[in-house]
Amino acid sequence: MKDQPMRAEKIVRSEDPPNLEMPFSTLDGFITPTESFYVRTHFPVPNIDRSKWRLRLEGEVENAFEITYEELIALESRTIPVTLECAGNNRIFLEPKVKGVQWELGAVGNAEWTGVPLSLLLERAGVKANALEVILEGADAGPLAESKGPQGDVRFARSIPLSKACSDVLLVHRMNGEELHPEHGFPLRAIVPGWYAMASVKWLQRIVVTDTPYNGYYQTLDYAYWAETDGLAKLTSLSSMQVKAEIAYPPTGAVLKTATRIRIFGAAWGADVAKVEVNVDGAEWKLARLIDEAKPNAWRRWELDWTTPAQPGRHVLTARATDKDGRGQPTEHDPNRGTYMISRILPIEVEVA
Amino acid sequence: MKDQPMRAEKIVRSEDPPNLEMPFSTLDGFITPTESFYVRTHFPVPNIDRSKWRLRLEGEVENAFEITYEELIALESRTIPVTLECAGNNRIFLEPKVKGVQWELGAVGNAEWTGVPLSLLLERAGVKANALEVILEGADAGPLAESKGPQGDVRFARSIPLSKACSDVLLVHRMNGEELHPEHGFPLRAIVPGWYAMASVKWLQRIVVTDTPYNGYYQTLDYAYWAETDGLAKLTSLSSMQVKAEIAYPPTGAVLKTATRIRIFGAAWGADVAKVEVNVDGAEWKLARLIDEAKPNAWRRWELDWTTPAQPGRHVLTARATDKDGRGQPTEHDPNRGTYMISRILPIEVEVA
Repeated sequence: MKDQPMRAEKIVRSEDPPNLEMPFSTLDGFITPTESFYVRTHFPVPNIDRSKWRLRLEGEVENAFEITYEELIALESRTIPVTLECAGNNRIFLEPKVKGVQWELGAVGNAEWTGVPLSLLLERAGVKANALEVILEGADAGPLAESKGPQGDVRFARSIPLSKACSDVLLVHRMNGEELHPEHGFPLRAIVPGWYAMASVKWLQRIVVTDTPYNGYYQTLDYAYWAETDGLAKLTSLSSMQVKAEIAYPPTGAVLKTATRIRIFGAAWGADVAKVEVNVDGAEWKLARLIDEAKPNAWRRWELDWTTPAQPGRHVLTARATDKDGRGQPTEHDPNRGTYMISRILPIEVEVA
Repeated sequence: MKDQPMRAEKIVRSEDPPNLEMPFSTLDGFITPTESFYVRTHFPVPNIDRSKWRLRLEGEVENAFEITYEELIALESRTIPVTLECAGNNRIFLEPKVKGVQWELGAVGNAEWTGVPLSLLLERAGVKANALEVILEGADAGPLAESKGPQGDVRFARSIPLSKACSDVLLVHRMNGEELHPEHGFPLRAIVPGWYAMASVKWLQRIVVTDTPYNGYYQTLDYAYWAETDGLAKLTSLSSMQVKAEIAYPPTGAVLKTATRIRIFGAAWGADVAKVEVNVDGAEWKLARLIDEAKPNAWRRWELDWTTPAQPGRHVLTARATDKDGRGQPTEHDPNRGTYMISRILPIEVEVA
């Protein structure tokens, strides 16, 4: 990590377009400061003039309409903490190495998001009875490197089921109490709580209600995995996050003093986290203390005291989370998940010297 | 073509698995003889013992059941001529060169198929009200070379909408009056009239009625194209054939005598063919005579007399078909169709000497 270029508080995974990672060892409070929050982009950041910007809602609705930025922020907003994680977080741990941004531990963050419920705008438009999905379209677009993708400029867009769109999805104009920064989707982004962050479309400009599955590039050839039913593998769009704990301290490669009490510290998310356990060198799993109270779709920090051995040596720390339904983390990455949904238990190697 | 290895009457595009093309210049009667009929396989040809074989129908039905070969062929069958075309036929004409079997003109044929209407078996099973699609699964399986596909052995399977399944789809046990040959799907294959042939699943062993879109490998990462609606490209499973005329005689590279009357001859299919026109060197399009009467989903052969020029020289012949709704053929291949649905007008170069 020390050889990576940095921008502000973040590791630069790519500059053009910007893909910036939080060094996960800098995890501190429940809320990730905006300047530390990871940035994932597919195309150059759109430069949007808010006075000319409009959000259009159309498709299988009674009354398609456009709304201005001033009209939108005047609507009743809610503020909630939501953890966003890139579906490719932890990709650097995959063996053999794969294509895609080489995220380590920090393509994840927890912010307070302020926005208008999508359900409110859908109600205003009057969704028709045949509606099935809601497509969220960003202003970001460009040509794809992928030869099997659509030709010409492709616009980033994702769909969500109508039921999800009508529940807890927010159209967000503020992050951590401030107007959205351009890299985080100014003037408006979606927040789809509980889903990997590719669904929380930035630079929103159009919402299309459809009566057929959308099957766009970013939910078929990208951001999809193979799920098996009836003995047949089906290409399935990524949606809900998988439960996961990550260790922030000590970081990989840390050199610790012998016979010293340290605090193993991290966060867990991806579901309603019920417990986090920590393991040293494959010995018994020890229950960590959950620091944050449970809130829907927000991470919980956790900690556990550990006294380092009296003898110098190398040690492997692991953490695992379990959700309220008893689901835990796998020990191996399922290759049918491709380069996404990497929720296997990760080793953190430290040296006691 | 003359450098290609041959097997029986066919050009060998690959031996393992067998992909065999009819030399289109051998087109003669309305019915393609079975020994000339092209063969498309994805995996080794399954070796099926008919006494042990069962067809299972399950999923969103009231009464799942299995049926033996003897029981199946005892049901009332229909015999119809249907033209099958591989979705990648004419791929050798694409520029730049692309991956996939390099079919020229002959991955197409017209046979008489004898089989039991799929609707009859669906009725027996009692399809539930929530049913949406019907998956046809073959016995052929194997690992994929494609890294983005499912892991392990993948079985060839395709789905069709319930409405199509209940209309004209046949479960076929005879081809041109004989028991199916192993390479054509023994003991049972589907015939999905009007669709590219990847839908006419061979070596059928299971039919699954589903209430969700299937999105299997062979209708997403393969055998799919990008169709645009609402300004957004959607990955769309290949289905209906596109209208097309092909010239069988003279073949590309033919050397013809000067000032001699010859018969330009071919076939047209892919829709209800209303007319075929022929063009020499970009001059006016001349109406060909349709030889076969119109039958749903079967090709129509056509012919046009042409007197070769008195002077030696090279000439380009083209043919184009128009369907009953006035749809014709494009002059360029749409790259959003990828390496499939190649229905552009093709040039046949001949020499008069």
